Amino acid sequence: MKRLETVPAADGFRMPGEFEAHVGCWMLWPERPDNWRLGAKPAQAAFVEVARAISRFEPVTMGVSAAQYDNAVNLLPDDVRVVELSNNDSWVRDCGPTFVKNDATGEVRGIDWTFNAWGGLYDGLYFPWDRDDEVARKICEIERRPSYRTDGFVLEGGSIHSDGEGTLYTTEECLLSPGRNPELTREEIEGKLRDHLGIEKVVWLKGGIYLDETTGHVDNICCVARPGVVLLAWTDDEDDPQYAISKENHDLLLASTDARGRKVEVVKLPLPKPIHISAEESKGVDAVDGTLPRLEGDRLAASYVNFYIANGGLVVPAFGDANDAVAVEVLGRAFPGREVVTVPAREILLGGGNIHCITQQQPA
Amino acid sequence: MKRLETVPAADGFRMPGEFEAHVGCWMLWPERPDNWRLGAKPAQAAFVEVARAISRFEPVTMGVSAAQYDNAVNLLPDDVRVVELSNNDSWVRDCGPTFVKNDATGEVRGIDWTFNAWGGLYDGLYFPWDRDDEVARKICEIERRPSYRTDGFVLEGGSIHSDGEGTLYTTEECLLSPGRNPELTREEIEGKLRDHLGIEKVVWLKGGIYLDETTGHVDNICCVARPGVVLLAWTDDEDDPQYAISKENHDLLLASTDARGRKVEVVKLPLPKPIHISAEESKGVDAVDGTLPRLEGDRLAASYVNFYIANGGLVVPAFGDANDAVAVEVLGRAFPGREVVTVPAREILLGGGNIHCITQQQPA
Repeated sequence: MKRLETVPAADGFRMPGEFEAHVGCWMLWPERPDNWRLGAKPAQAAFVEVARAISRFEPVTMGVSAAQYDNAVNLLPDDVRVVELSNNDSWVRDCGPTFVKNDATGEVRGIDWTFNAWGGLYDGLYFPWDRDDEVARKICEIERRPSYRTDGFVLEGGSIHSDGEGTLYTTEECLLSPGRNPELTREEIEGKLRDHLGIEKVVWLKGGIYLDETTGHVDNICCVARPGVVLLAWTDDEDDPQYAISKENHDLLLASTDARGRKVEVVKLPLPKPIHISAEESKGVDAVDGTLPRLEGDRLAASYVNFYIANGGLVVPAFGDANDAVAVEVLGRAFPGREVVTVPAREILLGGGNIHCITQQQPA
Repeated sequence: MKRLETVPAADGFRMPGEFEAHVGCWMLWPERPDNWRLGAKPAQAAFVEVARAISRFEPVTMGVSAAQYDNAVNLLPDDVRVVELSNNDSWVRDCGPTFVKNDATGEVRGIDWTFNAWGGLYDGLYFPWDRDDEVARKICEIERRPSYRTDGFVLEGGSIHSDGEGTLYTTEECLLSPGRNPELTREEIEGKLRDHLGIEKVVWLKGGIYLDETTGHVDNICCVARPGVVLLAWTDDEDDPQYAISKENHDLLLASTDARGRKVEVVKLPLPKPIHISAEESKGVDAVDGTLPRLEGDRLAASYVNFYIANGGLVVPAFGDANDAVAVEVLGRAFPGREVVTVPAREILLGGGNIHCITQQQPA
């Protein structure tokens, strides 16, 4: 399919909010044993449950390497479409396309950002990442969508949230990191975001969740419930290093207006208690030079903000924490009319992300 | 997507004629160096021209291994969709799904025949063929079509032609070969064809093109122009071993009636002069134990019958033979209203088949 050399905004395209209607959801099957314990079998079981939950609301497509195809197709429910899609790991939010829409024509196209495994040779999480960097294009091919290739501009889908009405939320920790686009100024980065996403204003948060290995992706700490209203991962424990990060973002957000001039409203979404990698969990991961190790006792970047908004539903990570129920209640209020479904997500968290990181919506 | 345990005919499905309307055409990218000379580069160029020709009439999807994806996407025209699809070789007519249609609902499903590389351990052309045997299912997944898996029943799409009105044309040489379903009688095989293809009558030709390595596929010697009218590969040279084969089929066909009771009309389509593998062509192929060798002087199974019927067009192999023009003329008369396009096909022929063998229509 066609590779476009223009930019989406100039062609009349904008990035919809995740809460707008989808034709479906993309996922990638986990398999690398140097990131997922026990040959990725527990993670695969968790991904199956996420796919099953989302497919109650909208069609799901699972991209799978040729080697794992038979296994995936046997484990997944019948109504999940399974396609070959080679990859370096399973974070389709970050390596997949960001879909943009032209409201006048209804056309949807994909943005194929340059992907460098969350930091490239500076502080990327593995090497190589060549397969991941082709995922966006391959998804656009399957869907017969033209794609925009952002020559050299590095971005992951998990580092941005759009309100669909001109506002983009992101973090300085990620987008200004030396591992992304160190040759560009903050203003030049804003220009790229405007040109590609059809937005008018960037609301810059400071940092992401404490120890988040994505260099502070916004999608683990803050997301948009609807234009003008955001959810923010929150702890009341002032001794937790997370407190200062969340507090700083909280105050920044309250002092912000969005592209339409609304004062931003912040809904606090409590965090689970800190979660650490167990000895047994650590032992199950292949130790390989050049891949981020998974060591016993390491704190994981657990957050309920990392959920997926489906048509008519939310699919939310559960950690077996007392706040699981609180999160469901807060989210139910923030998204009236959507059914909240939880999926046990510890095995996804162990790989370095959560439900939002392993999904990518395709707008209707 | 769903795997069905019923059979298509019982569910109200029939195999349309190739001349009925398509939503598009599937192909697979050639790459194995033990079948295609010079690392398959000349064959790839020929496949590109076939894809380009067909895409003038209907959408084309090219399935490509992960290893060849970048190369294929760079060589193919923009309007060809390129998807990852691992395979053992590029004969999607034979390993791909046979699509069947329910005229009452408009629904299209795929039949996923068991594939054994044209003869399995008896006289198959290569080993293994596991990737090929999954191609049909993977195509159905991409297209979100339920598929019927014919547990153990071996068939290639190139060994059958449907008139869409209850008649199936095939050859005894292929379907009764010990390399296919030796445990089944001719009557049991007819039963499988009826159950799966919704046909009422099988017209059995004897043999295929002389030395055809597919064990005499019908799609290289005879095809349906429209219900009641078939094209038959023909030579007037009585010294050519092909003469007796074509003559026997000719007389059989003339003595046949189809499922609707019509006397079958036969249009002779002349063959090109015999074509042989050159020393240079033979040298370019990796010699590998267990794969059919490509030896200097071997006669190739060239035939104009091995063309593709697209929406509003025909894509026909050209051999640089005096009969190229005759074939175009005969085909133009047999398919009024369709544009006849030729593509130089020697490089496809060198791999053991032709344009019909490397294409698979998906009905509208």
